Amino acid sequence: MEKLVVKGFSAAGVAAGLKEKGKKDLGLVFSQVPANVAGVFTRNRVKAAPVLLDRERIKSGVCQAVIVNSGNANCCTGDQGMQDARTMARLAASELGISEDLVLVASTGVIGEPLPIKKIETAVPDLVRSLKPEGISGLARAIMTTDTVPKKVSREGHLEGKTFTVTGVAKGAGMIRPDMATMLCFVCTDVEAESEVLKETLVKAADRSFNRITIDGDTSTNDTVLVMANGLSGAAIQSPAHKNMFQKVLDEIFLDLAKQLVRDGEGATKLVEVIVRGAESDTDARKIADAIAHSPLVKTAFFGEDANWGRILAAAGRADAAVDPDKIDVYFDDVQMVKAGMGCGKTIEAEATKVLKKSEFTLAVDLNMGHESYSMYTCDFSVDYVKVNADYRS
Amino acid sequence: MEKLVVKGFSAAGVAAGLKEKGKKDLGLVFSQVPANVAGVFTRNRVKAAPVLLDRERIKSGVCQAVIVNSGNANCCTGDQGMQDARTMARLAASELGISEDLVLVASTGVIGEPLPIKKIETAVPDLVRSLKPEGISGLARAIMTTDTVPKKVSREGHLEGKTFTVTGVAKGAGMIRPDMATMLCFVCTDVEAESEVLKETLVKAADRSFNRITIDGDTSTNDTVLVMANGLSGAAIQSPAHKNMFQKVLDEIFLDLAKQLVRDGEGATKLVEVIVRGAESDTDARKIADAIAHSPLVKTAFFGEDANWGRILAAAGRADAAVDPDKIDVYFDDVQMVKAGMGCGKTIEAEATKVLKKSEFTLAVDLNMGHESYSMYTCDFSVDYVKVNADYRS
Repeated sequence: MEKLVVKGFSAAGVAAGLKEKGKKDLGLVFSQVPANVAGVFTRNRVKAAPVLLDRERIKSGVCQAVIVNSGNANCCTGDQGMQDARTMARLAASELGISEDLVLVASTGVIGEPLPIKKIETAVPDLVRSLKPEGISGLARAIMTTDTVPKKVSREGHLEGKTFTVTGVAKGAGMIRPDMATMLCFVCTDVEAESEVLKETLVKAADRSFNRITIDGDTSTNDTVLVMANGLSGAAIQSPAHKNMFQKVLDEIFLDLAKQLVRDGEGATKLVEVIVRGAESDTDARKIADAIAHSPLVKTAFFGEDANWGRILAAAGRADAAVDPDKIDVYFDDVQMVKAGMGCGKTIEAEATKVLKKSEFTLAVDLNMGHESYSMYTCDFSVDYVKVNADYRS
Repeated sequence: MEKLVVKGFSAAGVAAGLKEKGKKDLGLVFSQVPANVAGVFTRNRVKAAPVLLDRERIKSGVCQAVIVNSGNANCCTGDQGMQDARTMARLAASELGISEDLVLVASTGVIGEPLPIKKIETAVPDLVRSLKPEGISGLARAIMTTDTVPKKVSREGHLEGKTFTVTGVAKGAGMIRPDMATMLCFVCTDVEAESEVLKETLVKAADRSFNRITIDGDTSTNDTVLVMANGLSGAAIQSPAHKNMFQKVLDEIFLDLAKQLVRDGEGATKLVEVIVRGAESDTDARKIADAIAHSPLVKTAFFGEDANWGRILAAAGRADAAVDPDKIDVYFDDVQMVKAGMGCGKTIEAEATKVLKKSEFTLAVDLNMGHESYSMYTCDFSVDYVKVNADYRS
């Protein structure tokens, strides 16, 4: 827990009554000095009010606090929604005694219902009073929707003998797919970095992590990933080598959170890394990995612990990419199940089934056509996924 | 039942032991004279052996019989699979006393296991003995995999005072999506038509039916749609007006079968027509309909009978098409749930929920941006979909 603390940052999560049963649903992260900031947001054309607000404000490159609620997405809420997002920021700014422009906002939850701004207004004083350096755990809990566990991770890095800390929280569960869907991720670090450097490393890290995961192929209106750097560690990014060092730490943080998201995907019981190699082009590798990782038939077979490789080949075949069925090899971890497009028999299948019974394994598809590869993380598709999503609002 | 009979055609379905419990799994359709034929096949790059064989044979434009099995897809089965497909045709041809080249083959079932050709060999004599004009019902049953009911339909048409009949059977259930996935469809007619005319009308009819349905977004290695016309009714297609008349009947046959497929989708409890209108372009309308019709979150909401329109807007927004969220209207049947991107309130939602409780309804999304439209048929995504597919092979 200690490790989560980042110099100069405090955080909190409280219950404002947006979710049922007194669950935490309002979170705040605050830096004692203005921090440089960078962000990436959903590419869905339907964007929630807080996303629209943040995209404007983040142009300054500076931010001192983020207020976030779960239980309501403040999306498809019209002018009132934009007003509510601004009000939410103003309430936090006022209580913190900082400029309103330095506050970003995020929301997640049901789309199309008015944000209960009164409940938020009532809760903000308590939220600010609750701020503490180790409060990041409360924040991780306050942003959960159908997540079953909070997601957080912390790493240290070193620059010229100085140590910096990077801590991140995220929420996911449903509506996850490449291009970052229904996910929120907030990362704080005490490294000193220009906002341009933050943006560049953030985009790369997201491409290597959040953009490679899928739960159900749906994407959200509210996705937001923010990195704030307040420089208070004294470690500063001043050279390409420094930037690479920071990139490495940020990559680890993002990938760790991304895997936590998939592992806790709605109804998920398995985390599967899908690796496509031997493709003629990077695009082909990506298309095939995408088709396999999203296939409901492949994902239900994972849930059924069934080494149904025919479904994997069928998914690869419809990916609109160069594939020669007679060349394909398929492996579950190190068990080769398919050689040159044909099954390796019942004995091998029994071995493969053992792999599928694990909670985490690798599915590798070698096209044997070229030298490009791509990997993604997916989960299985379970009875509980349907139950969770059929009942979500009731 | 009588109505199913097409002059000069007979059909049969028997149990050859490919499926468990004595279920019918081997079917045959036979024309007493060689018929003109046209077909469309899966565009999946992984193609089953019978598809590869048929694509060659159909170039002649003539066919007299189709033999088809369920329980095994004869796909990813290498050279042996191609041999087995040929053998299957030869067995039927020999027993029928016709040329091997006049027999087409289809298979559906599990991928990657050798076709039990011996069982088929044993059953063929009985299959041919069972041929009868009303045997189309047996054929409809013999091609079922996870289908719960056989799909068949029959229509009459009239040309210059002469009556012709068109009868079709189909199987679907899973792996259905635009571009025709895991489906087989065999249509017989006693109209007289050139194979080029059959091909042209078949492609149009498929585009208006099978290419507009989705169950799970997966596609198959075995999809086959065949139309055979033996000319024995005396009604002949000899003018553009005749062709239009035949097209109309074929469209009805295909659309009826397509809707039967979705209605009986794996685990499906609802048939939903998704209509996108007011789009700037046909492509945009198609992309948005596709995104909504495939969205697991939308489909699970249908299952939950939850008028969760936010998920519909979110799916529209990620379709990579021109969308202005503030202009979107959404209707369930004639209940307007969303006006200009915002919900119409709880009273209306109660009305919409009543629509969602129906087993068939329409979801219309009006983008209010242009004049193009597109429609698709989809089903809900249920707990049973997952159960069916997790257990399919066991």
